[in-house]
Amino acid sequence: MRLHVVNPNTSASMTRTIAAAAHATAPPDVEIVATTSPRGPASIEGHHDGAMAVPGLLQRIAEAEADGVDAHIIACFDDTGLHAARCAATRPVVGIGEAACLLACQLAERFIVVTAAPVSVPVLEANLRLNGLATRCAGVRAAGVAVLDLSYATGETDPVAAALRQAARDVPDAALVLGCGGMAEMAERLSHDLDRPVIDGVAAAVQLASGLARLGHRTVKTGGYAAPRNKETQA
Amino acid sequence: MRLHVVNPNTSASMTRTIAAAAHATAPPDVEIVATTSPRGPASIEGHHDGAMAVPGLLQRIAEAEADGVDAHIIACFDDTGLHAARCAATRPVVGIGEAACLLACQLAERFIVVTAAPVSVPVLEANLRLNGLATRCAGVRAAGVAVLDLSYATGETDPVAAALRQAARDVPDAALVLGCGGMAEMAERLSHDLDRPVIDGVAAAVQLASGLARLGHRTVKTGGYAAPRNKETQA
Amino acid sequence: MRLHVVNPNTSASMTRTIAAAAHATAPPDVEIVATTSPRGPASIEGHHDGAMAVPGLLQRIAEAEADGVDAHIIACFDDTGLHAARCAATRPVVGIGEAACLLACQLAERFIVVTAAPVSVPVLEANLRLNGLATRCAGVRAAGVAVLDLSYATGETDPVAAALRQAARDVPDAALVLGCGGMAEMAERLSHDLDRPVIDGVAAAVQLASGLARLGHRTVKTGGYAAPRNKETQA
Amino acid sequence: MRLHVVNPNTSASMTRTIAAAAHATAPPDVEIVATTSPRGPASIEGHHDGAMAVPGLLQRIAEAEADGVDAHIIACFDDTGLHAARCAATRPVVGIGEAACLLACQLAERFIVVTAAPVSVPVLEANLRLNGLATRCAGVRAAGVAVLDLSYATGETDPVAAALRQAARDVPDAALVLGCGGMAEMAERLSHDLDRPVIDGVAAAVQLASGLARLGHRTVKTGGYAAPRNKETQA
Amino acid sequence: MRLHVVNPNTSASMTRTIAAAAHATAPPDVEIVATTSPRGPASIEGHHDGAMAVPGLLQRIAEAEADGVDAHIIACFDDTGLHAARCAATRPVVGIGEAACLLACQLAERFIVVTAAPVSVPVLEANLRLNGLATRCAGVRAAGVAVLDLSYATGETDPVAAALRQAARDVPDAALVLGCGGMAEMAERLSHDLDRPVIDGVAAAVQLASGLARLGHRTVKTGGYAAPRNKETQA
Amino acid sequence: MRLHVVNPNTSASMTRTIAAAAHATAPPDVEIVATTSPRGPASIEGHHDGAMAVPGLLQRIAEAEADGVDAHIIACFDDTGLHAARCAATRPVVGIGEAACLLACQLAERFIVVTAAPVSVPVLEANLRLNGLATRCAGVRAAGVAVLDLSYATGETDPVAAALRQAARDVPDAALVLGCGGMAEMAERLSHDLDRPVIDGVAAAVQLASGLARLGHRTVKTGGYAAPRNKETQA
Repeated sequence: MRLHVVNPNTSASMTRTIAAAAHATAPPDVEIVATTSPRGPASIEGHHDGAMAVPGLLQRIAEAEADGVDAHIIACFDDTGLHAARCAATRPVVGIGEAACLLACQLAERFIVVTAAPVSVPVLEANLRLNGLATRCAGVRAAGVAVLDLSYATGETDPVAAALRQAARDVPDAALVLGCGGMAEMAERLSHDLDRPVIDGVAAAVQLASGLARLGHRTVKTGGYAAPRNKETQA
Repeated sequence: MRLHVVNPNTSASMTRTIAAAAHATAPPDVEIVATTSPRGPASIEGHHDGAMAVPGLLQRIAEAEADGVDAHIIACFDDTGLHAARCAATRPVVGIGEAACLLACQLAERFIVVTAAPVSVPVLEANLRLNGLATRCAGVRAAGVAVLDLSYATGETDPVAAALRQAARDVPDAALVLGCGGMAEMAERLSHDLDRPVIDGVAAAVQLASGLARLGHRTVKTGGYAAPRNKETQA
Repeated sequence: MRLHVVNPNTSASMTRTIAAAAHATAPPDVEIVATTSPRGPASIEGHHDGAMAVPGLLQRIAEAEADGVDAHIIACFDDTGLHAARCAATRPVVGIGEAACLLACQLAERFIVVTAAPVSVPVLEANLRLNGLATRCAGVRAAGVAVLDLSYATGETDPVAAALRQAARDVPDAALVLGCGGMAEMAERLSHDLDRPVIDGVAAAVQLASGLARLGHRTVKTGGYAAPRNKETQA
Repeated sequence: MRLHVVNPNTSASMTRTIAAAAHATAPPDVEIVATTSPRGPASIEGHHDGAMAVPGLLQRIAEAEADGVDAHIIACFDDTGLHAARCAATRPVVGIGEAACLLACQLAERFIVVTAAPVSVPVLEANLRLNGLATRCAGVRAAGVAVLDLSYATGETDPVAAALRQAARDVPDAALVLGCGGMAEMAERLSHDLDRPVIDGVAAAVQLASGLARLGHRTVKTGGYAAPRNKETQA
Repeated sequence: MRLHVVNPNTSASMTRTIAAAAHATAPPDVEIVATTSPRGPASIEGHHDGAMAVPGLLQRIAEAEADGVDAHIIACFDDTGLHAARCAATRPVVGIGEAACLLACQLAERFIVVTAAPVSVPVLEANLRLNGLATRCAGVRAAGVAVLDLSYATGETDPVAAALRQAARDVPDAALVLGCGGMAEMAERLSHDLDRPVIDGVAAAVQLASGLARLGHRTVKTGGYAAPRNKETQA
Repeated sequence: MRLHVVNPNTSASMTRTIAAAAHATAPPDVEIVATTSPRGPASIEGHHDGAMAVPGLLQRIAEAEADGVDAHIIACFDDTGLHAARCAATRPVVGIGEAACLLACQLAERFIVVTAAPVSVPVLEANLRLNGLATRCAGVRAAGVAVLDLSYATGETDPVAAALRQAARDVPDAALVLGCGGMAEMAERLSHDLDRPVIDGVAAAVQLASGLARLGHRTVKTGGYAAPRNKETQA
């Protein structure tokens, strides 16, 4: 089985982080194909970056679909372009944001998301309201760091770790969710440090996407995810 | 006062329809500047078209903002790229979908939307859920016609008129909303024929946007509508 | 075009404040007709005052309707008697509370309301729940001052200004809404001081009501806003 | 224990129906004091009638409160002026609409309301949304009869009985609620005929109000139900 | 009239507290029959205890139903097994948690629940979400005490009294609800001390259940509360 | 990796169906351990059966936990005893109902559930309301067949197939979900026949549970899923 993981920003280094997390958590019969968007912003922070990232993302989805993958993963926690990508593909498309929160809901009655930049918070809140999981969410918080400055320093000096530790204290019954694809490598150590599940969306999406592919399911194409009608388009 | 009305699809003929509706309903001290997106699909039907339309739309918003307009109107009922456009501008940005529904809520306890293509229905439903007006909405229906095939035939043979007539019968206490910018010219005659308010989003948005500009208000830029951070971008 | 602005309390001084705000923000072709309720409490604070104010308000609506105005504005932030007034009129009726919040939603993803007396808070919260805008509301707060004691002192000593300043600090991405018609004259200066839109409902309602009138729309009279049936009534 | 049942419309015949239903279902130690509003419409149908009925209702509440009753019941299914009445009293105030629906929720997972006139439907829907019971409501329907024309004809010719029978068929797991105080005398026979609980609000409110009085509870007066501030009022 | 009050845990001392509260607040024509579950945990704290308590509870419901009571009360604030019990009985079944909150809603626009152990909080929150009363609830708090350690010490040293006092301060317009059957005897004194209604669920349920029985209503058995189908069962 | 799949009813034949579905869809490194509840009803239909099934289910969970499995699956679509089971285990526990609906949400914007008996419908609706997925659900329908009578007849004569075919026609954009563990073997053929994803909860839960186990996550035990306190219990 082949899973296509597309990084919708144009930072190849972030693609490497994401691909490593996907490889490390894939079932034995799953091959990971990681791609990077060919155009758009180097990181996705907020509504504007997200919108500018979608055309490049859709190009990678179409290429991989033609290439014959079994499912696609959009490796930005904003689930950038998720609905448009489902129009472009027949194979299942999973966003790492929704995937992480769904897995969190299996481990606790509630979850908290810690993302990088404050400008991403309303984007994530809107997604959760639409996909139904706002009901289970005890808050979306920002660590106050730019996505491209993310790096995992051990201990209290790392702002993501600090924000997660605070969230764990504030809401003792919540699972914790890493709100950015670039945080993927932090999940295991933080789970250990905080003695609480800290869920990475890339790993979560690999489980969901491989499961959907294993069952042979495809996207319903008779409604809002119908393939786009052929029409004149200005490049 | 100058209002910028941008047609986010690339059909100049639809821009003309929209501009005419805006001119016809503008207060006396309002000048309309209509633009057409320079790239993307010729009509916007569903998630995929919408996503492909945004970068061209954002270019027009930025140009008009630099040019000194007092407010912007996005003339697609999907409110395509609305949040991204608010990041790109400091002047108010109004989407014709939200504007039409807001005005409808002043005329009846509920409203019904009739759009063109079925693939647009989930897009509109998601918008209404996020902006809070789903509570007031008695249904989003599709007339079953492609946007580029819209034309206003009098009488029962016009599918949009037929769908509105049916909606008016089914929900006697609802205001009626035209769910596509390309339907703008139908509003007046249908309001008369059905003896019920039939609201066009372009006209509605002109009222809201000119009102916001008249009061001198600007978009709050300290949250999710902050200007996009300067970062490396692949063209 | 003539807009009828009715002050549903019996304080003529408050009518003057409201009329001034309406005049100052009306489009050039709009004439403002301001009236004061002939009976009921001198200010409206809470459920009981609101209920006692409605019959006088409805009398003014009926008189203005007979007189031939193009739309009505109810100039109490509680939207006192809004639904009953829509039964009594065929011309559109706009409440300043709903109008202010609708305009705020065009400028930010969320808004906060600051009203005068705590007893008004549950009234406003109920309105927002019914009209769907609770979804967008980040809180209704009271400045802790009686409506008849409102006056705009510059600086920190004014409790309304202080409460707005605190709200702006607490929720950096929210537009601010003045929760009382008697605060109308504060909007412009506070917008400037706080560098954030501070929205007055009277001004907002003038934009909405003139827009509805400009489009020629009337209230849907086939449902809950049907004219009251003629029946025996004890005076 | 003395319960005050106020009919907020001015029809003495309807007060007799209501008082009889209250007497018939009161616990042995409960005395019923029935009053009729001194002014306002002869029946309450829709927002406008409701608003005009409140001042007369509040007068009766204040008189009975001074007279020393243990609780008040507002005998209109719209719960006309319920919140204003709670401001005017310290003793508990129960509306027959909310009471009927609360009792229905003890007998089935869902309930359906059948009221008299269609214009009442949005009033009842708004109440249910505010008091939380919309979640449990499977529909508010109108029998299509004016309140003053209500009379209980046995068999299929009675529109209320016919509407209830249809509701019972359509939603087999719902309790049935009579949506008008004037229907009180129908409850017992219809419960028998339909072999399903048919709940009358007057009887329901007697149970709730006597229960609250028995426990000695009073309305919380430190929030939205604070007594109205003393202020100048035009009569 | 005979009401069956079943304590779904196996602590006879708690049954005595509950029975005393029921006796003390019953109408004059109501006889209380109190039973204790024959098997399961000695107190119910959280999902697991609750699940283990249900079979014993259902046995007592079936026995009392055969014995001819007029209604049943489940005397655990979690409303343990409420829906299953309604399947097992034709007579009305009332849970003390829902009953207390319903009565609270008659006395204030909002209520707060103070329960004993933190592990009960999510159980109560889920109940409130399902029965619709979450809309009215301003919070479920835990006093941080095990159910079997409950005892009413006067003054600040009692953790339940302290938590209620804090809740009354934090939310001035809320009615207060005792979130555990074992707290029944505290209601009267705390109501007096805090000058705010403090509602005990046992007393509340006696009012509701006797009211339902007085009206002769029975549970709707044609839907989710149908009697369980006869089928092979392993003991 | 070892997954424990527990059938919470006492029908060994249904355990065989469930185990076969789990085996057929498990990743290559996953071993399935299937157990049958030792006591309770032979099938689970409605609230009462569900409640009676939990103690036996919890026994099997505890045994398997002690035995060292990596995750548990509760193989009844009602997610019987899910929260209690999470208290009893530290390893993740997945219910097949929630799992099926979560996977359906990755394939379409909405889903429909078709269960066996009508009495199960309110149970499933309550679950969806609590876990947040009601937002995505376009209806829960019953095929009108007892669980123990389920068998997959090809063609129109099978009531489950007929109900799914109708659902697919009524809601063209919905994924379809089999609402009973006993339907597991129908999924593949019906997916093919209806050309639409037909999702079986057992297969879905295997994907989720193996994914959670692969990532090493455990249930959060510091809130509502804390292990039950040790206390006196009557057997």
